[in-house]
Amino acid sequence: MHRIDASGIRKVFDLAATMERPVNLSIGQPHFDTPQPIKDALCKAVQEGKNAYSQTQGIAPLLKLLQDDVNQRYGHPDRRIFVTSGTSGALMLALCTLVNPGDEVIVFDPWFVMYRHLTTLAGGNVVQVSTYPDFRIRIEEVRKAITPRTKVILFNSPANPTGAVATKEEVKALAELAAEKNIALISDEIYRAFCYDHPFHSPAEWNDRTIVIDGFSKSHSMTGLRLGFIHGPQYLIQQMLKLQQFTFVCAPHPVQWAGVTAWELDLQDNFADYKRKRDLLVSLLKDHYEIHGGEGAFYLFLKAPWGTGSEFVAEAIRNNLLIIPGNVFSPSDTHFRVSFAASDEMIREGAAILCRLAKRP
Amino acid sequence: MHRIDASGIRKVFDLAATMERPVNLSIGQPHFDTPQPIKDALCKAVQEGKNAYSQTQGIAPLLKLLQDDVNQRYGHPDRRIFVTSGTSGALMLALCTLVNPGDEVIVFDPWFVMYRHLTTLAGGNVVQVSTYPDFRIRIEEVRKAITPRTKVILFNSPANPTGAVATKEEVKALAELAAEKNIALISDEIYRAFCYDHPFHSPAEWNDRTIVIDGFSKSHSMTGLRLGFIHGPQYLIQQMLKLQQFTFVCAPHPVQWAGVTAWELDLQDNFADYKRKRDLLVSLLKDHYEIHGGEGAFYLFLKAPWGTGSEFVAEAIRNNLLIIPGNVFSPSDTHFRVSFAASDEMIREGAAILCRLAKRP
Repeated sequence: MHRIDASGIRKVFDLAATMERPVNLSIGQPHFDTPQPIKDALCKAVQEGKNAYSQTQGIAPLLKLLQDDVNQRYGHPDRRIFVTSGTSGALMLALCTLVNPGDEVIVFDPWFVMYRHLTTLAGGNVVQVSTYPDFRIRIEEVRKAITPRTKVILFNSPANPTGAVATKEEVKALAELAAEKNIALISDEIYRAFCYDHPFHSPAEWNDRTIVIDGFSKSHSMTGLRLGFIHGPQYLIQQMLKLQQFTFVCAPHPVQWAGVTAWELDLQDNFADYKRKRDLLVSLLKDHYEIHGGEGAFYLFLKAPWGTGSEFVAEAIRNNLLIIPGNVFSPSDTHFRVSFAASDEMIREGAAILCRLAKRP
Repeated sequence: MHRIDASGIRKVFDLAATMERPVNLSIGQPHFDTPQPIKDALCKAVQEGKNAYSQTQGIAPLLKLLQDDVNQRYGHPDRRIFVTSGTSGALMLALCTLVNPGDEVIVFDPWFVMYRHLTTLAGGNVVQVSTYPDFRIRIEEVRKAITPRTKVILFNSPANPTGAVATKEEVKALAELAAEKNIALISDEIYRAFCYDHPFHSPAEWNDRTIVIDGFSKSHSMTGLRLGFIHGPQYLIQQMLKLQQFTFVCAPHPVQWAGVTAWELDLQDNFADYKRKRDLLVSLLKDHYEIHGGEGAFYLFLKAPWGTGSEFVAEAIRNNLLIIPGNVFSPSDTHFRVSFAASDEMIREGAAILCRLAKRP
């Protein structure tokens, strides 16, 4: 644990707690409420007494829905699924199962903060492949980063913190490289529903051994209910299930029943609303900031117009705007993350502050 | 993961699935329903929209209740608490935080199955101290098992699978030995409420650095809701919290609000009912089996009257009785576990089969 410093985002939130009514563009979860049918299904399951352990892999009706969908999308005969305690639960199981001490895990810089910590927990080392300045994946850079110790490539599109959505060509090249080199490819697809400019592609379309991590937290605004899932080659899935048995035990049982209802909901209006919010934020900032990424998820990752990322964020916070410094996600302290999971009013207020601060004070 | 074989209990349950209407004395959770006020509090929190992430350490009102109770019981100035995803979540955090590769963890044989697997996950090795045949802790045996690599003693009273409740003298001696040798002492107190013959004692009464694991799963019949807690020295608690941040993230948020209601409930009638069930089972078996342990939890751990534990359990299953072979909890294949978390009728039926099988067929 001494090798892990997980304090980055927490420091920002501690600061936030001292602010009176901050313009908060730091949030990593949808700002819409959990849809009512999901709440009702959860309460029904609770009242019906579905509060004891479920099977380790999850309840049969949810498993069937998820497995059918995966079969239909990929048609991989060996692909199996199980229900996890959120996507972070799935990530932990995948990394602790795949990574042995000293193994290397390729991550794209900037990355989601957990990737580095979970790799360290599993005894592995992260190897960074930069996607700066445009957050594109350059496959030759990935190829150069591969060594005999490379065990896993950890891929995330749409990405946190950049909002970048990898193109079909990028995803296909990465999928094929992992297959060619016999390296496990973990695809974190938690932001899959939030894709605004071109269709989502999973590396599983070209690499049948891809381990896919997915969940309900972001798409259905269920972050505190801890419901995710993972699918991949049967043999690996069984190893991960063994680990789930004595760590997470099972995803919260009644929440799994709510998942059955959640799966059938049409939330396209919510996702369209996020596209509109993305467009709004981009239109407000584009004259003062160069914009890369942001084709998905609910983030922009912008270069600080002056000073380091942290210096700029400190000034933003002094101006009542809460954003996250880029060095939380990267060894480079050059950028900051803005979330548009917020009300239009807050987005407008935040953008006004950012435009005002674009010139060094 | 190849070093972990977690299939023991699962094999029994797979067998059980093929049985028509088994007499099931294999269950490791209370047979009473989750109390209605807890269900109602959970639904209220869900409907009020408490479904997003909570703080990593848990919601303030639950933390306050738990911290006040711990302060009142022990008065340790440095003792801090946080809310976990069940006791298995707490155990994982504690072991992954404390154990470095090659460290030794002392466990009492027979042990709860997870202890061995979680120690392996953390890179440690278990060192067994036998409590056979009477399931008492002999402190000189513990002292002899300590080496320079001993990092943790993992203690569980009331115990699974034996139902043994350590005496005040045993607990005090263990607490003092750990303090003397500067070894971390983890006390798994999940069965604390189920104590029938003498009062419960925690090693925290004599060792202020004891790490205590506790939860709502067994006492409040909330196993599938994943709510536990852990308390110990502030410095360690902070390290564990760091690990919770990127694994469990938080205990299911609305369940934490249900925990506030659960904490105030008086469930003495339920616990008294389990004492009565324990007395019933013992009275039915005592002429055919020698009985040790069983002063707490809801298990008896009995010596097979003939053959190995597994051979005897196989014969029991052929006679429609589902029990767990002792080699799931121990390197010794001599015993079996009977649960009395069952209806009186099932306890009577099961006991009748066990008495009939006491003579080799």
